[in-house]
Amino acid sequence: MAEKYDVIIIGGGPAGLSAGIYAARARLACKLIEKAALGGLIVNAEKVENYPGFADGVSGLELTELMQSQAQKFGLDTVIGEVQGLTLNDSLKTITTSAGDYDTRAVIVASGSEHNKLGVPGEEKFTGRGVSFCATCDGYFFQDKTVAVVGGGNAALAEALNLTKFASKVFVVHRRGELRATKIVQERALANPKIEFRFNTAVSAIEGGDFVKSLKLEDTENGKASTLKVDGLFVAIGFKPNTEFLKNTVPLDGAGYVITDEKMATPVPGIFAAGDVRSSSIRQVIGAAGDGAVAAIYAERYLSEPH
Amino acid sequence: MAEKYDVIIIGGGPAGLSAGIYAARARLACKLIEKAALGGLIVNAEKVENYPGFADGVSGLELTELMQSQAQKFGLDTVIGEVQGLTLNDSLKTITTSAGDYDTRAVIVASGSEHNKLGVPGEEKFTGRGVSFCATCDGYFFQDKTVAVVGGGNAALAEALNLTKFASKVFVVHRRGELRATKIVQERALANPKIEFRFNTAVSAIEGGDFVKSLKLEDTENGKASTLKVDGLFVAIGFKPNTEFLKNTVPLDGAGYVITDEKMATPVPGIFAAGDVRSSSIRQVIGAAGDGAVAAIYAERYLSEPH
Repeated sequence: MAEKYDVIIIGGGPAGLSAGIYAARARLACKLIEKAALGGLIVNAEKVENYPGFADGVSGLELTELMQSQAQKFGLDTVIGEVQGLTLNDSLKTITTSAGDYDTRAVIVASGSEHNKLGVPGEEKFTGRGVSFCATCDGYFFQDKTVAVVGGGNAALAEALNLTKFASKVFVVHRRGELRATKIVQERALANPKIEFRFNTAVSAIEGGDFVKSLKLEDTENGKASTLKVDGLFVAIGFKPNTEFLKNTVPLDGAGYVITDEKMATPVPGIFAAGDVRSSSIRQVIGAAGDGAVAAIYAERYLSEPH
Repeated sequence: MAEKYDVIIIGGGPAGLSAGIYAARARLACKLIEKAALGGLIVNAEKVENYPGFADGVSGLELTELMQSQAQKFGLDTVIGEVQGLTLNDSLKTITTSAGDYDTRAVIVASGSEHNKLGVPGEEKFTGRGVSFCATCDGYFFQDKTVAVVGGGNAALAEALNLTKFASKVFVVHRRGELRATKIVQERALANPKIEFRFNTAVSAIEGGDFVKSLKLEDTENGKASTLKVDGLFVAIGFKPNTEFLKNTVPLDGAGYVITDEKMATPVPGIFAAGDVRSSSIRQVIGAAGDGAVAAIYAERYLSEPH
């Protein structure tokens, strides 16, 4: 027989841990399921400067560990396992995982998302050392530096325009001959004197020492190789939410993100979502942690109502 | 002539400071207006245990100071002044304050709310020392203690029910002979063996040493005085949002709170709200800080669009 809980939290990043702090402190019977030992994309961030309360910044790893020990102090139990499915019964939901099945009255989905990667040599090595996936997070570290953005959609041009506030030069490297971004954003990027476009160009490798120093580029039409000196590379080729296990149970938006209201509730009673897995998430630690607390408080309220 | 800004933030609690960290770090021309030297209700909290990242807790004052110095580091400018009005012009908004007028393209309202107070001797002295306005925040500190809740509405009974998870005994003190709470909540509270009601009773004073020890009660029908030994008192007689200056510019809910969507946007383009001033706020520091970041990021996005 499956174990039975008030609330199961799926995902151990800032959203899930914040929900866990609130749920455990409210004395709900709860458990957090995380697929790795430490959760969340933020674990890879060398320095987080904009999480309110850490005036001198904090590493993503340290912040996650602090949240974990805080949640454990209130009695949050964590299990390592991969969530495979979610089944809705009458009032109970059943979560199937590689570590066993769990019956629960409420669920907080905080399973996050992954950035699409270039898959080129150096990308993994230099992540957090010049390779970034977020200008709002890391643009500030590139004052008067030269950076490149890979991508050709709205997100890529928004990142490039954002970076012009910090960097002295911003290259936009795009594998096609034309941009996918909307006209008005294109016009603004093309008119910005700090932005220079490299069309029909792909990044084939990222090179450097301790930090990024240059990109190996390849012309996508004639295969010609070249080198571009940069201090940073922002990869803006999309995200993939971790929502495979939710298919056919919870409404997702066109890109696969969970749709919630401002109480973090999905249209399915008792199922909440928090953090980057949520449609219109700001993809920031503070936003995810805020979401987690909101989801836990409204889950608690849901549990106290008659069903 | 009024000074001109990209974004003006009204209020210097966690919501306003978080918005300030994000807006200043994004290099927006911004200013924060706060009516006192230090902002937000949380300044009075002796210990905040549930702000994710502070595993051993932190005082409300210290957390606020940390956020302030973080915002200052990114160049946020703060002015002390009382906001008197907000006027909408074509694309600019004008904020009238006791410290001068400011023209701005976007506004983030983070002016918070105040709890209604009993106005009895000892209330101010013991706030944070046994007198609380929030069971979610402070209930955990009263394990196996005796507490009282003042009030007779849904919020008061929800606080009382919440407190039964921690306290050994919960008195509900209500000045009338019957409750205002909805039937189902009343039934649940009346059926709970830990809850004892004191109808037609008002708190006339709060007494103790370092912490609360007892309440002076008064029968509201015959004026008879009595004493009730308690370790804590939760005041649940409502809140008042600080939204006087918004009248006739931004839609408010029935209780005077600002209505926003999940992007913290009000229906008025360029006006955002964050934290306790917002309808359906969870009244928690982490929620307010999350709101502030969301408001700043969507304000930035608003500013980058053509108007």
